[in-house]
Amino acid sequence: MSHVGVIGIGNMGNHMARNLLKNGHELSVYDLSETVLHKLKSHSSKVTVCKNPREVAEQSEVVLTMLPNNDIVLDTYLRDDGVLKGATKGKILVDSSTTAPSVSKKVFEHANKNNVEFIDAPVSGGVIGAENQTLTFMVGGAESTMKRVEKVLLSMGKRAVHCGDVGSGQAAKICNNMLLAISMIGTSECLNLGIKLGLNPKTLTDIINTSTGRCWSSDSYNPVPNMLPNVPSSNDYKGGFSTDLVLKDLGLAQDAATDTHSTIFLGALSHQIYSTLSNNGFGNKDFAYVYQFLKGNK
Amino acid sequence: MSHVGVIGIGNMGNHMARNLLKNGHELSVYDLSETVLHKLKSHSSKVTVCKNPREVAEQSEVVLTMLPNNDIVLDTYLRDDGVLKGATKGKILVDSSTTAPSVSKKVFEHANKNNVEFIDAPVSGGVIGAENQTLTFMVGGAESTMKRVEKVLLSMGKRAVHCGDVGSGQAAKICNNMLLAISMIGTSECLNLGIKLGLNPKTLTDIINTSTGRCWSSDSYNPVPNMLPNVPSSNDYKGGFSTDLVLKDLGLAQDAATDTHSTIFLGALSHQIYSTLSNNGFGNKDFAYVYQFLKGNK
Repeated sequence: MSHVGVIGIGNMGNHMARNLLKNGHELSVYDLSETVLHKLKSHSSKVTVCKNPREVAEQSEVVLTMLPNNDIVLDTYLRDDGVLKGATKGKILVDSSTTAPSVSKKVFEHANKNNVEFIDAPVSGGVIGAENQTLTFMVGGAESTMKRVEKVLLSMGKRAVHCGDVGSGQAAKICNNMLLAISMIGTSECLNLGIKLGLNPKTLTDIINTSTGRCWSSDSYNPVPNMLPNVPSSNDYKGGFSTDLVLKDLGLAQDAATDTHSTIFLGALSHQIYSTLSNNGFGNKDFAYVYQFLKGNK
Repeated sequence: MSHVGVIGIGNMGNHMARNLLKNGHELSVYDLSETVLHKLKSHSSKVTVCKNPREVAEQSEVVLTMLPNNDIVLDTYLRDDGVLKGATKGKILVDSSTTAPSVSKKVFEHANKNNVEFIDAPVSGGVIGAENQTLTFMVGGAESTMKRVEKVLLSMGKRAVHCGDVGSGQAAKICNNMLLAISMIGTSECLNLGIKLGLNPKTLTDIINTSTGRCWSSDSYNPVPNMLPNVPSSNDYKGGFSTDLVLKDLGLAQDAATDTHSTIFLGALSHQIYSTLSNNGFGNKDFAYVYQFLKGNK
């Protein structure tokens, strides 16, 4: 078992840290919130609280970061008391935050200069996947590096998929989530239109699910309440994948599309739709709430 | 076996008529083109060519119409030598054209006055499904009427799904196809962006297909050439579901949404995207060609 550093003990990082402990790893941890750090320390004697990211890297063989955005990731790695200042040859750095692929590439270049290995490994599965150790890691970077940390990753998830060079994990996540957002809005438009035309939503869902409109948003996460049990739409759109988080990923997709001159008609409009939902106070609702937004309440 | 009338011997109707003959039905047929009528007659002695839709209805127990648009359907049923003039009590009328639900309702009202049964039964499966007798009929109208003609429908397809009252078959088809168009454009945007970010399209497709972006357009009809065998994208976008046909269905979805005050952000934009493809000369290409349109050729 390894000594693992965890930086970012939020909704995701807290569950991931606890699963690492459960699987026998020792941890050095850092977060801006002293409360979450002390709560984690009181949970296990195998937790060392550090005063900055550099100290975490000095004490650990593998460092995992799980942070909210591009700027915080860059700062956490590159600042004077940052991860790279404490990372010496042989250590492996893993960023599981969702960021622009260019952020992963920048951190990699700095790490590479010091002969330190770095991979981007954003996850799918959300808070529930983090809690149940069923995350999928989408990995960009050397396959040999991924193999060396696979045991650590599988202490927090069920699968690590190699996507290509550094930044590819981020690219794969952003692309998938853009398609997911488009599918969710499309499914919501389809079901709302069908209901307004007099169709039973259950009948229409059954037809879609065995036809060419079939998609995960219809058959596994239907946005109309009570079509499926145990999905957020059947529980007042609580839990799940929040509108604010899908909005963040769509912003990254939009940035990546602008950088690469890629045309994303529906991706761009989906970004604007989720931006409108968030600005109207629905940022904490599950992203399937777009169905209710389209339906309205006249 | 029944005496079936078939009106509209086009790309779809011709295959459907031949499958009816193969399954032992006798046919009375009508089309504007004398060429297709005589070709069908020379194919089988069980074919009677009629001089108008009324005559077809007079000679048949079940009348099937397979026509290109709203206006032609209404004209074929309602005009002086139209279907309804020859349809007496006990006969069953089946419209397999794709039209606005309101067209099916209008024809039904006229038929109902004369105690003639009518169902709308648009199909999915395209020309290949018509040829191979694997169509799915989406049926709107009385379930008892559907049961009475099920044997005739299953002489042309593999499945008949009851969707609800008259017009519901059309509604289900329009809604599914709108979601299909959205999914196809979304999948194309996702794969194009991924490729521009350096991902291998096969790797990205594999990730999507086991993740939340999973959809028929990715796992069964991938728009990137050579991801899947035997799909139009791997054969220069020939055959399949043409851009002009998806454009027609999106126009019907747009009309239905306007009528019912339903919001279709992505459906409306998809309509405009396929309109642009058609106006740029790609109307005959399979609808997955949108991937090439997004990719461009700079």
